[in-house]
Amino acid sequence: MEFDLIERIRRHTDVNRDDVATGIGDDAAVVAVPAGRELAIAVDTLVEGVHFPVGTAPADIGWKALAVNLSDLAAMGATPAWALLALTLPTSDEAFVDGLARGFAELATPYRLALIGGDTTRGPLTVTVAVHGFTAPGEALLRSGARVGDVVMVTGTLGDAAAGLRCLAEADASPYVALVERLNRPTPRVSAGQALRGIATACIDVSDGLVADLGHLCARSGVGAEIDVAMLPRSSAMLAHFHDADAIDFALGGGDDYELCFTVPADRANEVAADLARIGGGATRIGRVVEGAGVHVIDASGQAVAPVRAGWNHFAA
Amino acid sequence: MEFDLIERIRRHTDVNRDDVATGIGDDAAVVAVPAGRELAIAVDTLVEGVHFPVGTAPADIGWKALAVNLSDLAAMGATPAWALLALTLPTSDEAFVDGLARGFAELATPYRLALIGGDTTRGPLTVTVAVHGFTAPGEALLRSGARVGDVVMVTGTLGDAAAGLRCLAEADASPYVALVERLNRPTPRVSAGQALRGIATACIDVSDGLVADLGHLCARSGVGAEIDVAMLPRSSAMLAHFHDADAIDFALGGGDDYELCFTVPADRANEVAADLARIGGGATRIGRVVEGAGVHVIDASGQAVAPVRAGWNHFAA
Repeated sequence: MEFDLIERIRRHTDVNRDDVATGIGDDAAVVAVPAGRELAIAVDTLVEGVHFPVGTAPADIGWKALAVNLSDLAAMGATPAWALLALTLPTSDEAFVDGLARGFAELATPYRLALIGGDTTRGPLTVTVAVHGFTAPGEALLRSGARVGDVVMVTGTLGDAAAGLRCLAEADASPYVALVERLNRPTPRVSAGQALRGIATACIDVSDGLVADLGHLCARSGVGAEIDVAMLPRSSAMLAHFHDADAIDFALGGGDDYELCFTVPADRANEVAADLARIGGGATRIGRVVEGAGVHVIDASGQAVAPVRAGWNHFAA
Repeated sequence: MEFDLIERIRRHTDVNRDDVATGIGDDAAVVAVPAGRELAIAVDTLVEGVHFPVGTAPADIGWKALAVNLSDLAAMGATPAWALLALTLPTSDEAFVDGLARGFAELATPYRLALIGGDTTRGPLTVTVAVHGFTAPGEALLRSGARVGDVVMVTGTLGDAAAGLRCLAEADASPYVALVERLNRPTPRVSAGQALRGIATACIDVSDGLVADLGHLCARSGVGAEIDVAMLPRSSAMLAHFHDADAIDFALGGGDDYELCFTVPADRANEVAADLARIGGGATRIGRVVEGAGVHVIDASGQAVAPVRAGWNHFAA
């Protein structure tokens, strides 16, 4: 009875939107896109044991499944509107579903995101969310617009989620709660993405790791990038618990941060930093767009630093 | 590298649409809904060992994952436009992915359905598709409009997929290839659904079994339904291999047929049957909408028949 569970989850969100003609309960949802708006659509799957550790709280799973998708909309500068949820569960566990629903709703409600449909199936624990958001025609932030001379910036801090994952291996992770929170409850930078419309020349969210994701942006833009290790924004929570080498490793290669990495014309970097500081989370200048290809990491003396590990690749070791 | 696999699949479909501003390769797809159209959206997941037997050919998995979703659009009377594919694979197996892509493309291409995004992750074999189609405002076929006195009709034949699943247990399933084909390569009744716009009062696709799905339609419409066992359309392929009792069991309770079950005013039943015969697949009158609730099955003498088994429920035994 797929709708019973999906409807049960929806009730936690309690968001009503005039643009939803038919919500949960029919063969498909029917919605209306506002005149003059294009639709940004993303889908992402979380698999237990791959994207979140076995034993993760159901509310954290619900939050994160939506967060990673809202992060994709954020990277486009889109305004969230609707989501569908495809949930595969080993057993019909109502307490688990209610927990997942609470976490999902905590993140969905402030964005007035409506859960409009979904599917529940039996099988290994897997959560797929499809999100839909609005953009003005031609205004979506793409990966492809970076130009030589642009400044590379990133929101928030990098490496916390990877540090949090490392902390979970400790006998007592309680001193590291801030880092574990960053792993389990990432903040999609939706407002930052919207503020970057018309300013950023290219944008991507950091899901696989900075070097990997900035590499995707460079590849789509036909440029290279140079990153200054010393400028990478690292949280005091991470620096309190990890040596500098580990912290840099996490910041360069750790996935799951869901910050936005973007490029702006050099003469607008200060303005953007000020704007995003006002919104919260801030943004830091970490490097520059150069001719060529790939991401080059340099230390304070200008020497090349070999990235310690590659980005997160689900099909790698 | 999620895009490599999804882009590899997209190349098999080779559908270009003017309404896709940004396809695979960015954080989200960006599309434009035509003026004056609403959007129907559905998502469905297939899990290996639950929705298709272990050992199913990759091309059949690709076809079926799209077919079950197009069937949801068919049940709304919607015109297919775009799909996203979230694929969870135990290993990065290019031959498997190419096979899946071939089956997906065989069904997508005639509908000019564009694959605009997706995600690939490592984990137990699971295929989730999200589809998007167009409807005119207020014209989507819902489950909720059946009225007492309407005729209940169904497209094609019922029970073949369940019969095919039974045949797979045989040492040699080759005599039953037509039935197994119905299980592995269901035909979404997209044209039939479009033809029913403005005529059918309610519509649903038969994924869980006739009694279960017609029951959903009745519940949403606040009515009951009476089905005549003798009128159930059963294929010669099924009748050649199964006793009548089994055939009725499959037709009433077997899932996975993906025919449309719908209600029409009694005075339009003949016209609808003629229209759908022209389109192909046809439609058969199988009963009537009555006051009350639930689905009542009667034999040729008017005696109640107890449904032999309940509809497919992934969380039941």
